[in-house]
Amino acid sequence: MKRVTMGHGAGGEMMQELIERSIVPFLPKIKSEVPLESYDDSAVVDNIVFTTDAHTVKPIFFPGGDIGSLAVSGTVNDIAVMGGKALALSNTMVLEEGLEMEVLERVVKSIGRYSEMAGVPVVTGDTKVMEKGAIERMVLVAAAIGRRHPAMDHNLQVASSYRKVDSRWLTDDNMRDGDVVLVSGTLGDHGIALLSFREGYGFESEVQSDCAPLNHMIGKLLEVGGITSMKDATRGGFANAINEMSAKSKVGIELVERDIPIKEAVRNASEMLGLDPLTIGNEGKVIISCVPRMAEELLEILRADEHGRDAAIVGRVSKDVKHVVMRTEVGGRRILEPPVGDPVPRIC
Amino acid sequence: MKRVTMGHGAGGEMMQELIERSIVPFLPKIKSEVPLESYDDSAVVDNIVFTTDAHTVKPIFFPGGDIGSLAVSGTVNDIAVMGGKALALSNTMVLEEGLEMEVLERVVKSIGRYSEMAGVPVVTGDTKVMEKGAIERMVLVAAAIGRRHPAMDHNLQVASSYRKVDSRWLTDDNMRDGDVVLVSGTLGDHGIALLSFREGYGFESEVQSDCAPLNHMIGKLLEVGGITSMKDATRGGFANAINEMSAKSKVGIELVERDIPIKEAVRNASEMLGLDPLTIGNEGKVIISCVPRMAEELLEILRADEHGRDAAIVGRVSKDVKHVVMRTEVGGRRILEPPVGDPVPRIC
Repeated sequence: MKRVTMGHGAGGEMMQELIERSIVPFLPKIKSEVPLESYDDSAVVDNIVFTTDAHTVKPIFFPGGDIGSLAVSGTVNDIAVMGGKALALSNTMVLEEGLEMEVLERVVKSIGRYSEMAGVPVVTGDTKVMEKGAIERMVLVAAAIGRRHPAMDHNLQVASSYRKVDSRWLTDDNMRDGDVVLVSGTLGDHGIALLSFREGYGFESEVQSDCAPLNHMIGKLLEVGGITSMKDATRGGFANAINEMSAKSKVGIELVERDIPIKEAVRNASEMLGLDPLTIGNEGKVIISCVPRMAEELLEILRADEHGRDAAIVGRVSKDVKHVVMRTEVGGRRILEPPVGDPVPRIC
Repeated sequence: MKRVTMGHGAGGEMMQELIERSIVPFLPKIKSEVPLESYDDSAVVDNIVFTTDAHTVKPIFFPGGDIGSLAVSGTVNDIAVMGGKALALSNTMVLEEGLEMEVLERVVKSIGRYSEMAGVPVVTGDTKVMEKGAIERMVLVAAAIGRRHPAMDHNLQVASSYRKVDSRWLTDDNMRDGDVVLVSGTLGDHGIALLSFREGYGFESEVQSDCAPLNHMIGKLLEVGGITSMKDATRGGFANAINEMSAKSKVGIELVERDIPIKEAVRNASEMLGLDPLTIGNEGKVIISCVPRMAEELLEILRADEHGRDAAIVGRVSKDVKHVVMRTEVGGRRILEPPVGDPVPRIC
């Protein structure tokens, strides 16, 4: 009998297969600008951007964040990377009977702090309790709604002055030949910080989770303009997100390995653990494609923001390659594949 | 040390206290038509109706429904009872490692069927997996978004021709002296069906869950008009919902006990189990208040609908009483209190 495995929740190819085979075929289809079947960061229905994320992170408090900061940042970012402006959040908590009230309040305070930081209020919610042992401490599920960001018209106008743009939103399928690819900072921090803290490897003194709401930074980028596509590199890491963008846009992407920002400690930890840092989840990093002329200006804006200090141009969309290809530091080339499962379970 | 108990998730006074003490004070406040602090069925932000519900029901399949039909009906109804028209749903699933794929697909098919029935598509979602033993089978969390129902203007216009109406929505605080109170059918079915099935009491052959999306029925009522307030009687049952309406509207409500529709089997089961059927959760029943002149016409529309066949006028808003008072069958009066916890855990 086929059964659900940890890999099915991990954000890689196994999860995609589960969704495509066992979920989406059984749900009614509708026409909308960004439907369920586009598997983008958020859906768009009747000009409302709508998204949701479950959080089962273990442990619930970790260096650089907690389950509450994840819940707010995750959904706010999913709205922002579509070119949306988040308006409001829902917060649902499923709690284990016996959970210390102090722990609950610490998490809710964190939700409040991040909600304040993002400028996106929690307006609705639900609370359920399951018997001791029926759920491990707590699961949070957030949803968010938003409108199209007021600066999106300007952003796409700038892009359109260089090349044809097909989407009103920053959908994954909107990359075109010549576009420049940027990342907003070092990759792999969240997953390594969490794994190291959980297993006691000791790297967490140097690496903290990058968990943060990026909506203000992304708003500033839209005001500059020229962005064509954007995605946050969460479960499955950069490798998964960039491959999704490449496949949906039907373009090849050429990356320069030495330009991809990775913290020394993350590199060392990954090597020790036999992990590829590009497949490790992030919670405050986005991949951006833009028209070439705007790349340097956008990079400058990113670097001026506290959440984009280590931003970098990492490659470009190119007709010369298929899928995602990386020029390695030793001068070779390797295909960057999406991960099958996830090397680190329950990091978000 | 204070800890979370099952009662905190049960929809009665304990849950209200948890929300008011340990959740809402730590979240930033905003001005909106129906904010978080109104504790209504949905919030309204920038003319978007937004709600969410977690489902931890045990077992996940039961007579008359399953966790999937609950997830769709619960959120669709929460939008409808505000005077909203649901546009789209999110569906988040937290699964236990090892869950049979067949079970997952059965639930997803049910979500699809109910989504089709309600005419509200699932447009976004998330899937997470927790280790075996870290979560019992599955938890579903749905959120829904909607717009103001097109028939709401007409509905309130009709109401306004009889008395002043203060809300653009069917908020809980909108009952006024003289309003007639209706329920859309027999009370306590869902909770008793579930409890009986779970514990093997045998009543489930006569009582099935009433779980259903009521949006089409409510739409027809709005087209008739004159409704002032509406609420679905879920966790905590009728007793909890009617007390919330009374308290928020600052009115007394006089009910006639013998007019409250309760199935014979539900009455018998409740008696045997020492439960008050008015505190038992429903998943397809709403409480409606309307201007007196429209009550009979609305009742007729309800009774013509498959989900409202047993609808009844059960009382009225009255200056003569405080809180919720029930004229009993033997001619006495008793105050109908909201439940403190919930007599039946994990029914939704």
